[in-house]
Amino acid sequence: MKIVESVPNFSEGRREEVVREIIAEAEKRKGIWVLDWSMDPDHNRSVVTLIGDPDVMVDALFDMTKKAMELIDLRYHKGEHPRMGATDVIPFVPVLGVTMEECVELSKRLGKRIGEELKIPVYLYERSATAPHRENLADIRKGEFEGFFEKIKDPMWKPDFGPDEVHPTAGVVAVGAREYLIAFNVNLGTNRLEVAEKIAKAVRHISGGYRYVKAIAVELKDKGMVQVSMNMTNYKKSPLFRVLETIRREAQRYGVPVVSTEIIGMVPLQAMIDVAQFYLQLDDFGVDRVIENRLLQILAKEGAKD
Amino acid sequence: MKIVESVPNFSEGRREEVVREIIAEAEKRKGIWVLDWSMDPDHNRSVVTLIGDPDVMVDALFDMTKKAMELIDLRYHKGEHPRMGATDVIPFVPVLGVTMEECVELSKRLGKRIGEELKIPVYLYERSATAPHRENLADIRKGEFEGFFEKIKDPMWKPDFGPDEVHPTAGVVAVGAREYLIAFNVNLGTNRLEVAEKIAKAVRHISGGYRYVKAIAVELKDKGMVQVSMNMTNYKKSPLFRVLETIRREAQRYGVPVVSTEIIGMVPLQAMIDVAQFYLQLDDFGVDRVIENRLLQILAKEGAKD
Repeated sequence: MKIVESVPNFSEGRREEVVREIIAEAEKRKGIWVLDWSMDPDHNRSVVTLIGDPDVMVDALFDMTKKAMELIDLRYHKGEHPRMGATDVIPFVPVLGVTMEECVELSKRLGKRIGEELKIPVYLYERSATAPHRENLADIRKGEFEGFFEKIKDPMWKPDFGPDEVHPTAGVVAVGAREYLIAFNVNLGTNRLEVAEKIAKAVRHISGGYRYVKAIAVELKDKGMVQVSMNMTNYKKSPLFRVLETIRREAQRYGVPVVSTEIIGMVPLQAMIDVAQFYLQLDDFGVDRVIENRLLQILAKEGAKD
Repeated sequence: MKIVESVPNFSEGRREEVVREIIAEAEKRKGIWVLDWSMDPDHNRSVVTLIGDPDVMVDALFDMTKKAMELIDLRYHKGEHPRMGATDVIPFVPVLGVTMEECVELSKRLGKRIGEELKIPVYLYERSATAPHRENLADIRKGEFEGFFEKIKDPMWKPDFGPDEVHPTAGVVAVGAREYLIAFNVNLGTNRLEVAEKIAKAVRHISGGYRYVKAIAVELKDKGMVQVSMNMTNYKKSPLFRVLETIRREAQRYGVPVVSTEIIGMVPLQAMIDVAQFYLQLDDFGVDRVIENRLLQILAKEGAKD
């Protein structure tokens, strides 16, 4: 049995009926499951978490992209979150019995179909990128929908699939394979935003911090606290515990305690076992020692026999 | 889909072919799986970890008990570990879609069959116990095989199932339902056994410590260290992190550091998530946020449809 995860982002966070229609394109299929979905009216964006069979996943994502193209018109879209397409980004993440290389292949297969059949330009990103300057999603998305009508003419930004013209209402889309992304927030016992800003700067890659950490400072007015809000783009190489302990130490410097933390959405087992193993100082331990995970391996194998 | 775990203990830790014949009684069945097994020649004892369908589990455990009766003769058994039966103890542990009450029922169903068909006296223990003095396995086992020929005549120790006479070669057996048991060892950076002894005394229930902790001090001569070796009999109520932090603090009192820890065998997901959640100071988190666990729930549900 092979299982991949995908977390497509759609540029609609206000009209729930539209989001539900897009999700219905996934729900109608056997072999994949909607684990979670959320919409944010300020960002005017929705995020759906899917897991399941790789082939079914490609078909479902194609249908969702088609439905989003039909229902979302980016010419009238406003929201805080940067965006370039009705379907903005489609990542593939290996979960069970699937390699990163297979996920790259899946992203190319889906990208090709979207480009050829829906006439939406497709950019392969992260591990699927066809050039180094296309690895980072933020670099691809720069200029957003409105800017892409010029950007696409630059040979550096010729799409990987589809026409060399922006789709007039659905824009362009990024498709790629990547590691799990963990949204990890650390709440600090102070209302001084500058403390969170200094700490975010200390841990994020771009300003000299950990290689796989993106971090910003956020004010939590309701709670009278500030937050270091992070995307952990490779929990294996920049683990949660190490980043948290660095934040704790840096905060101490300002006499500020870590009050609590949050993980948004789903998290892979390995990331949590790594945390437990670190703090327990556990020798010789791994996810194969977790009963539920062994049971999953067994059921996945049994299922594969059918 | 319903899944239980069982970890039967057999009084044979030297003749591998005997242990393998017993295990073969489980392996021949569909719907249960042997996760792990180990034999200890000093203890002259083997431990098998099984998971799977409750009904199949009862049948398999009956066959294993019958095979152990045929192949093991306790009159000639010597080993460091106390024992009272060829099959010494059979616990049922709820894993998925099964309640503790159902596990109590399973233990009674198996106990009845062992008593009636194999003529081996059966004592229900832990959550299945029919009287408070029979809850603790160590209390039942006191006197061991040799002492049971007298002990069984005491009305206090009349078996729950089977004859009122010890089986001449297979002894008696304890069967019951219980929570997961986690074998958790903490290694200390000293060779002073008295430090481990004082700390074991501080954390174990019997001498005033945590309600669900059994602890002894062990010398690790090869490593030049000492160890607090524990059975955590309810990780939900006496959690690993709390006991470890108490040990760490008590060891500090003697200028001794915690060097490392070990978990022996399998561990339930919840126990490790509790650890990660404590040390990360994670608000609002649970095992349903772990992707692999969600996938297991889905596959178990799909399987149940067949």
